[in-house]
Amino acid sequence: MARFLKSREESDGKSPGSLIFIGDQKVDSANIRLIDYDPESLTDKELKDIHVTAHLKDTPSVTWININGLHDIDMVQDIGEVFELHPLVMEDILNTGQRPKLEYFDNYIFIVLKMVRFDKTTETIINEQLSMILGRHFLLTFQEQPREIFGPVRERIKKQMSRIRKTGTDYLAYALMDTVVDNYIYSIEILGEKIEDLEEDILSDPDTSVMEKINSFKREINYMRKSIRPAKDAIYRISRLDSEIIQEPTLPFLKDLEDLTSHATEAIDTYRDLLTDQLNIYNSVMANKMNDIMKVLTIFAAIFIPLTFIAGIYGTNFEYLPELKYKYSYFIFWAVMVTVAGALIVYFKRKNWF
Amino acid sequence: MARFLKSREESDGKSPGSLIFIGDQKVDSANIRLIDYDPESLTDKELKDIHVTAHLKDTPSVTWININGLHDIDMVQDIGEVFELHPLVMEDILNTGQRPKLEYFDNYIFIVLKMVRFDKTTETIINEQLSMILGRHFLLTFQEQPREIFGPVRERIKKQMSRIRKTGTDYLAYALMDTVVDNYIYSIEILGEKIEDLEEDILSDPDTSVMEKINSFKREINYMRKSIRPAKDAIYRISRLDSEIIQEPTLPFLKDLEDLTSHATEAIDTYRDLLTDQLNIYNSVMANKMNDIMKVLTIFAAIFIPLTFIAGIYGTNFEYLPELKYKYSYFIFWAVMVTVAGALIVYFKRKNWF
Amino acid sequence: MARFLKSREESDGKSPGSLIFIGDQKVDSANIRLIDYDPESLTDKELKDIHVTAHLKDTPSVTWININGLHDIDMVQDIGEVFELHPLVMEDILNTGQRPKLEYFDNYIFIVLKMVRFDKTTETIINEQLSMILGRHFLLTFQEQPREIFGPVRERIKKQMSRIRKTGTDYLAYALMDTVVDNYIYSIEILGEKIEDLEEDILSDPDTSVMEKINSFKREINYMRKSIRPAKDAIYRISRLDSEIIQEPTLPFLKDLEDLTSHATEAIDTYRDLLTDQLNIYNSVMANKMNDIMKVLTIFAAIFIPLTFIAGIYGTNFEYLPELKYKYSYFIFWAVMVTVAGALIVYFKRKNWF
Amino acid sequence: MARFLKSREESDGKSPGSLIFIGDQKVDSANIRLIDYDPESLTDKELKDIHVTAHLKDTPSVTWININGLHDIDMVQDIGEVFELHPLVMEDILNTGQRPKLEYFDNYIFIVLKMVRFDKTTETIINEQLSMILGRHFLLTFQEQPREIFGPVRERIKKQMSRIRKTGTDYLAYALMDTVVDNYIYSIEILGEKIEDLEEDILSDPDTSVMEKINSFKREINYMRKSIRPAKDAIYRISRLDSEIIQEPTLPFLKDLEDLTSHATEAIDTYRDLLTDQLNIYNSVMANKMNDIMKVLTIFAAIFIPLTFIAGIYGTNFEYLPELKYKYSYFIFWAVMVTVAGALIVYFKRKNWF
Amino acid sequence: MARFLKSREESDGKSPGSLIFIGDQKVDSANIRLIDYDPESLTDKELKDIHVTAHLKDTPSVTWININGLHDIDMVQDIGEVFELHPLVMEDILNTGQRPKLEYFDNYIFIVLKMVRFDKTTETIINEQLSMILGRHFLLTFQEQPREIFGPVRERIKKQMSRIRKTGTDYLAYALMDTVVDNYIYSIEILGEKIEDLEEDILSDPDTSVMEKINSFKREINYMRKSIRPAKDAIYRISRLDSEIIQEPTLPFLKDLEDLTSHATEAIDTYRDLLTDQLNIYNSVMANKMNDIMKVLTIFAAIFIPLTFIAGIYGTNFEYLPELKYKYSYFIFWAVMVTVAGALIVYFKRKNWF
Repeated sequence: MARFLKSREESDGKSPGSLIFIGDQKVDSANIRLIDYDPESLTDKELKDIHVTAHLKDTPSVTWININGLHDIDMVQDIGEVFELHPLVMEDILNTGQRPKLEYFDNYIFIVLKMVRFDKTTETIINEQLSMILGRHFLLTFQEQPREIFGPVRERIKKQMSRIRKTGTDYLAYALMDTVVDNYIYSIEILGEKIEDLEEDILSDPDTSVMEKINSFKREINYMRKSIRPAKDAIYRISRLDSEIIQEPTLPFLKDLEDLTSHATEAIDTYRDLLTDQLNIYNSVMANKMNDIMKVLTIFAAIFIPLTFIAGIYGTNFEYLPELKYKYSYFIFWAVMVTVAGALIVYFKRKNWF
Repeated sequence: MARFLKSREESDGKSPGSLIFIGDQKVDSANIRLIDYDPESLTDKELKDIHVTAHLKDTPSVTWININGLHDIDMVQDIGEVFELHPLVMEDILNTGQRPKLEYFDNYIFIVLKMVRFDKTTETIINEQLSMILGRHFLLTFQEQPREIFGPVRERIKKQMSRIRKTGTDYLAYALMDTVVDNYIYSIEILGEKIEDLEEDILSDPDTSVMEKINSFKREINYMRKSIRPAKDAIYRISRLDSEIIQEPTLPFLKDLEDLTSHATEAIDTYRDLLTDQLNIYNSVMANKMNDIMKVLTIFAAIFIPLTFIAGIYGTNFEYLPELKYKYSYFIFWAVMVTVAGALIVYFKRKNWF
Repeated sequence: MARFLKSREESDGKSPGSLIFIGDQKVDSANIRLIDYDPESLTDKELKDIHVTAHLKDTPSVTWININGLHDIDMVQDIGEVFELHPLVMEDILNTGQRPKLEYFDNYIFIVLKMVRFDKTTETIINEQLSMILGRHFLLTFQEQPREIFGPVRERIKKQMSRIRKTGTDYLAYALMDTVVDNYIYSIEILGEKIEDLEEDILSDPDTSVMEKINSFKREINYMRKSIRPAKDAIYRISRLDSEIIQEPTLPFLKDLEDLTSHATEAIDTYRDLLTDQLNIYNSVMANKMNDIMKVLTIFAAIFIPLTFIAGIYGTNFEYLPELKYKYSYFIFWAVMVTVAGALIVYFKRKNWF
Repeated sequence: MARFLKSREESDGKSPGSLIFIGDQKVDSANIRLIDYDPESLTDKELKDIHVTAHLKDTPSVTWININGLHDIDMVQDIGEVFELHPLVMEDILNTGQRPKLEYFDNYIFIVLKMVRFDKTTETIINEQLSMILGRHFLLTFQEQPREIFGPVRERIKKQMSRIRKTGTDYLAYALMDTVVDNYIYSIEILGEKIEDLEEDILSDPDTSVMEKINSFKREINYMRKSIRPAKDAIYRISRLDSEIIQEPTLPFLKDLEDLTSHATEAIDTYRDLLTDQLNIYNSVMANKMNDIMKVLTIFAAIFIPLTFIAGIYGTNFEYLPELKYKYSYFIFWAVMVTVAGALIVYFKRKNWF
Repeated sequence: MARFLKSREESDGKSPGSLIFIGDQKVDSANIRLIDYDPESLTDKELKDIHVTAHLKDTPSVTWININGLHDIDMVQDIGEVFELHPLVMEDILNTGQRPKLEYFDNYIFIVLKMVRFDKTTETIINEQLSMILGRHFLLTFQEQPREIFGPVRERIKKQMSRIRKTGTDYLAYALMDTVVDNYIYSIEILGEKIEDLEEDILSDPDTSVMEKINSFKREINYMRKSIRPAKDAIYRISRLDSEIIQEPTLPFLKDLEDLTSHATEAIDTYRDLLTDQLNIYNSVMANKMNDIMKVLTIFAAIFIPLTFIAGIYGTNFEYLPELKYKYSYFIFWAVMVTVAGALIVYFKRKNWF
């Protein structure tokens, strides 16, 4: 499957808004976790049925429902009904090939982000879709599989004195997105370090594996860029929505998040440029090595081919070949050869060839 | 004929708005199909004469007239009269070298899109023009030849409970454009997969055919880009038209379509960059191979040319050549040669040449 | 003279607005042609003296005065006086190194365009300046030499029933510009076809002439681009001028012209990219060929140099050289050589060198 | 650690706004220096405890508190409390991997800049974070370590007649930023001079070290760019803030600072382009040298290999080899060889190979 | 000194607005020339002391004071006092490393431009700073050294009937800037012609000097670009200033100047692209030549090395070597060699190698 594009191929001609899961099923069974809190109280439990949360939708407490696993279309359908989601939103949640984006509806904001992770074994970037439905009093998050990335946020929620307990769903959404973006920075840093380390290899020991690494890092950086760049636009637009869902005290945090995302995209561009420069340098190093190889060849050939020719002359069997008879011929022959070789060596030295 | 540009050459100096078919005639006879529906009723028939549809133009039912084949200028002229189209619109419909665009007239919106298709035999992109005239109560679509791309939409129309039956012409137009854009994504994905697969060939077995493939995929990607990029602008502008033709409930769908088109153009740009990177890598691999070839040559030449020279010395016929007489000369001779060869081998090993 | 820039060198320090003809004189004598028409009547004659047209300036009929040849400064001066042109406008008309542009004065619009033509003999683009002064009731056009490009427009004017006869000067100006832009498209297409045809040569038979063609086509494309790109801006601005000179019914035509110009500039950019890609491919093909050449050399050298060395050993004249005496030495010698050669051939085959 | 990106890795999942120092501790103990002045009086002293400055916050005198060393989190916390800073601001001050930026709060402006310095020993750019909190009557500056960069500004403050004494905190902030930007220009100039000097080496003596220099200068230029480019945006926005903190007479100075920063970023872009050009030229020079090497090899090989072959023929031991018997054979043999060599030399001369 | 950036290094830490001359002193003594005119009268004299002009500042006559030489700081200080200039303006006048710019103050406009000149001896661009202070009734111009570039403008002023005598200081400023921009065009044209001429050399006789020329022209073009690009922005902004200093009748002239500057920057970009293309072509030509060299080498080596080997076989001294005894061996030997050589020649011909 093309890694850089997941098509809706199967849904061709299907009605837009039909629910089809597009992606790899990564968990056995989907699960739903409800965290409902206000400054005083806190509920945290696994749910079987989404309908029990219907009444929480409009209570002033913060209601966070996290769904792991998207292949259970019925469940997603139920959620859509309970929270009155637009059919297109539900289609997008199920299609894990979405581009990060923000869409604003009357009662909620729909945010799609990509969570990225650098897999150290394969040295590739793994990419997972996070869909968020942010309402005035509820937040739905959809992940492809359970990952403990949001654990620390849950820890903070459990502490009664934390800022997160005193603020609304918008701050919770910010906290989750902040975690996602922190992960961008972290992944870029890991990859970046590897990229910066390449430089030394290129200059000291440039073999094919270095070039393959340049190539593969470039591909991974591009892959990351594809996930993060649109996220920047989406985050930029959140704080500019004139919506009651985003409360004024959360704005500086969103602004900070925006800066962080800019930082991430700039770092990505810096590393892209660095890799391009590295490939250029690699090619120059290769050209240098080629020059060195050819110099060796040329020096050997230019010195010994003429000498061999001279030896060849006196290896001929002409009956009348006067030089062969003289007693000192052989020594003169050596003297000539040493002179020729010496002259050529001086010539190449002058040319700075060695 | 230049593939990237079809000129209006033949119409030079002709009055703008003169009707001339520019393109290849792809069907024997043009055909007209009328689908007229509202939530309760549905008509679907082939027409001989467009004039019978005149009265449907302003009825609240959705009237979709699809024309296959553009070479029948009289027919197009008739349609123009019945639906009161601007002469330039009719000229553009007949010129299949149009650039995708949107034009807004008082009573209708004129949209030109390109339908693309990846032909697996020739591995090229096939490009066909779709012109749409979207009025308040009617939709005209013009295709160069009948293709079953819109079949699923017709199926949906036939289902009385489908959303499409309950909505207006604007939603129908959206549904058709959605199909077209889905096809973009699908075609890009097929091509993209082939492009991503190239990478392995480049590193493992880079011969000329790989380079030809890079080249031909780049050409196809560029060809696709030329069709899709302007479509993005056109679709962007539809939802921003302040026209009663586009009804409010259709807007989220158009917004979604816009996102999809952005997705397509971004994927195209990603693949373009990937191909450029691949050509660079290909060149680096070639340079590496050249280095390897030259190393082999240099090693052979540098070792055996001096040895041959030494042999040549003792092949000379000088009468007085003292070494020839000693009993162990031949073995010393071998010893010298082995030493020289060994020294050179060590030298090249040190240089990491093999 | 620098082809990409014609300086005003001669007018250095001269007062701006001084009238000096800059360019090559391309006709013996300048000529003036007046066409004056309204839906009912039509006048078409050559003029000696521009002053006779003075009274036509404000009559509602369309007055089109075309001047061929710009070296007659007095004549241009007269025209300037009769039509009350700004001195800078007159200076610009005479300087054929102008950049396409639009300037808006109180009573008229000044438009400079370049007419381009592909000269098939030299395979170069020829570039000629067209200056237009568009007033409410008159249109002045200045060409460097008579060319029949506007013939078809004149034909249309002669037909009493044509749209052009029923419309104003703005439509006439549009019709002329449309002809000019059609010529852009046509020229790009001719050049584009040649460019697309190059591809095959590059892959099958890449010699120096191919590279020279890539280079020369790139130069011509750039030259064309320099003429057409600013024209796009100028045309864009015409339909956005809030001037009574441009009447509302002409707007869709100007919009169409704008699209056509966009089409032209996009095609130019496409071909520029194509040429860049072609040069890259050409270089890769060259690198491939180099690899092939080097393989041939290396195979020959690596096989025969060792063999020659072996032969050299037994060509030495050592008195005590035991192998020479054995009866089967010569056959063993051959066997060794065949084995060495065979081993090397297998080695190179394994390396996929042939 | 990745030099181009310092992540907040450690704070993953921590509450945003938690205070953690990210960076290298560069001083033993943090120190606080208070300078408080108005046109008449001046106080300048080291502080142990920030709380003593609380009352100065709102007095009309200019209060400048400079903190060197950021690892003392308690101290920073105290400052945050005294000056009522937003938790995010305090987090950003402590994180030395910030991107230059400007943030506007109700009572103060938060500015992050990078101070850059070219280290002549390592030929690398050193980068240090400067955070400024600019209030109506106070200015806080945070540096990673004490550096005498602001010495001259302090000198000016000490002179009672200087402009700085007569103006407000905004002018003081400007004066400090001006010093920072002057240092950008100065560092770019030093690096730029080295870059311009490279050119000669490339053309006269292009060895690997030249290429390594090109590479390393490019990396340093990019590193500098990363610090300076966002600074330009921040400075641009200061003078456009509609805040009472920035007084009208300071605006021309900020405008000038903006120009200076543009100048710096343009110079950086110019040097980036120059380095790219230099690498291209370097590669061309390398290709030229390769051509020269190959010419030498080819000339030697092409002349002596055929001659050796001819000698080889007459070194054969055929019993019936008529030429060997003629008396003048040997001289004819020489004549043939001289002719062949001469012909080849003429051939190569004609090809302009030497 | 870095040519692309002149730093304020010496003024580090100095108060902004301190007057220091930065640049090379190019004249012995600064001189002041006053031209004061209105339609009726004209004064033109050298001044010793600027104070005598103080009363002219506000008279309606046009007062043009030109200063040659900037090293006399006292004089500049005096001028600043008389004309009440902002300290930053005076600092900028003295710093000849300024970037072209426009600054608008209450009573005057401050314009910095670069005058460029192509020095034919060194084939480099010389760059000199022109600072203009344009008030309602006075114009100050500061040059680094006297150059006769403004001579023709003075001539025009002397003619009582010229437009310049009837217009205000804004037109005078325009006339001077027009002269400067004309010089840009002229310099670009000279350089452009040289660049266009290079093309032929590249294809016919590409040696190192061609590459050095490409490199040096690129550097000069970039240097010019750095002077002209910001000038374009400055000129653009002059006509958009809503200031009484710029009178309405001067606007079309400024508009024309703007076009001219666009023309200049576009030409520069065209030539930059051309040079990049030329370097690419140069590299391709080099690669072609390398291919040719290698073909020669390979053909010689591949033909003669096997032949030499064959000769070597029959040069061995094996006692039992049957072929040596046959009478026709030697002729068969020749036949074999001719056949081998012929076969190889056919092979290379088939490969199109010669």
